[in-house]
Amino acid sequence: MSFEEKLRNYAKLVVEVGINVQKNQPVVIRTPIEGAYFARELTRCAYEVGAKRVYVEFSDEEISKMTYEYASEETLGEFPVWETTKYDALVDQNAAFISISASNPDLLKDIPANKIAAVQKASGKGLIKFRKATSNSEVCWCVVSIPTEAWSKKVFPECTTAEEANKKLWEKIFIATRMEEEDPVEAWKSHTELLAEKCRFLNEKKIKMLHYKAPGTDLMVELPKGHKWEGGGEYSTKGTYFVANMPTEEVFTMPHKYGVNGTLKATKPLVYAGNLIDEFSFEFKEGKIVSFKAAKGEEILGKLIETDEGASYLGEVAIVPNSSPVSRTGTLFYNTLFDENASCHFAIGSSYPTNIEGGVQMSDEELEAHGANTSMTHNDFMVGSDQLSIEATTESGEKFYILKEGEWAF
Amino acid sequence: MSFEEKLRNYAKLVVEVGINVQKNQPVVIRTPIEGAYFARELTRCAYEVGAKRVYVEFSDEEISKMTYEYASEETLGEFPVWETTKYDALVDQNAAFISISASNPDLLKDIPANKIAAVQKASGKGLIKFRKATSNSEVCWCVVSIPTEAWSKKVFPECTTAEEANKKLWEKIFIATRMEEEDPVEAWKSHTELLAEKCRFLNEKKIKMLHYKAPGTDLMVELPKGHKWEGGGEYSTKGTYFVANMPTEEVFTMPHKYGVNGTLKATKPLVYAGNLIDEFSFEFKEGKIVSFKAAKGEEILGKLIETDEGASYLGEVAIVPNSSPVSRTGTLFYNTLFDENASCHFAIGSSYPTNIEGGVQMSDEELEAHGANTSMTHNDFMVGSDQLSIEATTESGEKFYILKEGEWAF
Repeated sequence: MSFEEKLRNYAKLVVEVGINVQKNQPVVIRTPIEGAYFARELTRCAYEVGAKRVYVEFSDEEISKMTYEYASEETLGEFPVWETTKYDALVDQNAAFISISASNPDLLKDIPANKIAAVQKASGKGLIKFRKATSNSEVCWCVVSIPTEAWSKKVFPECTTAEEANKKLWEKIFIATRMEEEDPVEAWKSHTELLAEKCRFLNEKKIKMLHYKAPGTDLMVELPKGHKWEGGGEYSTKGTYFVANMPTEEVFTMPHKYGVNGTLKATKPLVYAGNLIDEFSFEFKEGKIVSFKAAKGEEILGKLIETDEGASYLGEVAIVPNSSPVSRTGTLFYNTLFDENASCHFAIGSSYPTNIEGGVQMSDEELEAHGANTSMTHNDFMVGSDQLSIEATTESGEKFYILKEGEWAF
Repeated sequence: MSFEEKLRNYAKLVVEVGINVQKNQPVVIRTPIEGAYFARELTRCAYEVGAKRVYVEFSDEEISKMTYEYASEETLGEFPVWETTKYDALVDQNAAFISISASNPDLLKDIPANKIAAVQKASGKGLIKFRKATSNSEVCWCVVSIPTEAWSKKVFPECTTAEEANKKLWEKIFIATRMEEEDPVEAWKSHTELLAEKCRFLNEKKIKMLHYKAPGTDLMVELPKGHKWEGGGEYSTKGTYFVANMPTEEVFTMPHKYGVNGTLKATKPLVYAGNLIDEFSFEFKEGKIVSFKAAKGEEILGKLIETDEGASYLGEVAIVPNSSPVSRTGTLFYNTLFDENASCHFAIGSSYPTNIEGGVQMSDEELEAHGANTSMTHNDFMVGSDQLSIEATTESGEKFYILKEGEWAF
């Protein structure tokens, strides 16, 4: 199969399985300009299955960086009103959203942390309706990746040309997204079914507490009553089955906001807002991060935690076996979409309302009352390794291992 | 001078002379993705002279074309509400606007004329405030060009590679924009001063009627009382001197909407909405186009004229000597920005309120009462040649030639 054919099939997978475009639906594609060739394939695919109109939003990292460099903190804190209008209107029109995640992990490393925090806060507020719509599955959305020069070179610093690095990263992306299987659409069907089975098992157990143990980690994580494990695809509130991340290897739910205690050590670096945070750990008391350390990016990690009240609590607990296809690529991607699917992880910030019974209909206050965390931010960080065990205790007192030495234990 | 240095100087010219960026002013750059490298130079330049924030809006012709192909006429007729919000807000913030004009002249040649008309009408309505702000000089704006592959190949079909065609087009663009002069900023100063002198002369004459004569053309054009000739740069209503087109070689004013009679033959093709219209002519009666012919693109020309009531009347009369630098490149650019500055031209559609005394403060009704044309559209077409003469008759009855055999006659 030529690269062009594979690219078309990849676009088809994203359009038909990822966002599952419905007849007469608007589609939004957000992509770096380097990805125009893939955006064209996505656009054509979306129109061919009946999209009403496709809006492609291009960005350029060099120009974004200049904005961070030159614009004042005050200016960066002003979110353009028309972006709010746009995303609010697109949610109202039940648009489906494709995001191409392909950032240079080091892009903003020399930008003052205050400026980055200002932008994150402003977009958190400005896009609040859109963010709620995606985390509530009111709309279908999908995050996928393609290589871009700066990112590929970061992942494969040994490559001497951008072409070589891009080619290598494409290979890894195609493995991770099951594009190497004979029929990727079928492969995704059975994969999402398998994840659904794991969720059914865990949901029936009605777990009260998870105990994480690994070097540097000894953490008790309470799960709220009525929590729901999800994984693979999901149904939007309009009834369309979609897959929000490609790849996705996790089953996940929400922790009880105030029920997390102990120490937790990350096992992979985290890229946040164009900055690399590495070798970091947290101490939790009654859910709150009471102290943290990082060998790299400690200041920006501090800013992340200060975004708002909910940013110093966890919002997601996700389980990924250490032998997932993404893990097996043996690659550190410096990109959450991949790295989170190679590793057990948590998220700092908001929980998904879909992870608790009736959550989608609850107000923020009701969510909090049920133990869910709310925040403008949601950032995954990795804790998985072949030394991680997770022991569960159910509401009825039964104990069993979910993970042993990083692999499924049930 | 290396190409990179020249490119930087070109960006500087556009930012400092074209839109003349003021401290703390927002700047908008609209560009095809192919022009990202130039957009980055413009962005850096704008920030360096104190721009508050630079918004770069990328587009891709292949994706635009797909939208025309796949979306229904009804969908194409819906202008996105957020685009209106955006441009309205940017006008309110006194942003300055750079547009990179670099279209493939044949892009939409296979698209039904109805669809193109739907898009033009929708954007005409949706961007009405923005269009008024630019034609009233309430904001500073500048249209400039860079080569893009499809366009360069159309201009230089004999070139075998895109690189070669792009290089040739860059050469012509640099000649046309006076980038080959020792000090382009100084060259533009004396050039705009020369055009201003021509305007002063013509304004003092208080012309009543212009008589156009050339093969296929015999046209009487009445000018309204209080008309003003303009050319080169102009002052925005906020007092900033800017140059709206680079290149610009014309002096122009408005005709009396109902005072145009006779026949008029275009001397160059017109590119309208991605379509080429060629070898066309009009017959006017009391200002209105009562018949038209075109060897190529007649249907789309018909749609243009039907856009609204004002689209079958003229809105601009512009004089360019046949020996302008753009003419001397000997190149047919298939791009109005260049071709109109190589040739005398008219525009179908709206007149510029700045071309009549007090016009900027007038309502549409008042403008019409003074003989100005109003329309959602404004499209230039060329009538200049070395056989064109224009004889003027002043209000006091004096007769003199403005142009003889295509050259200034005063």
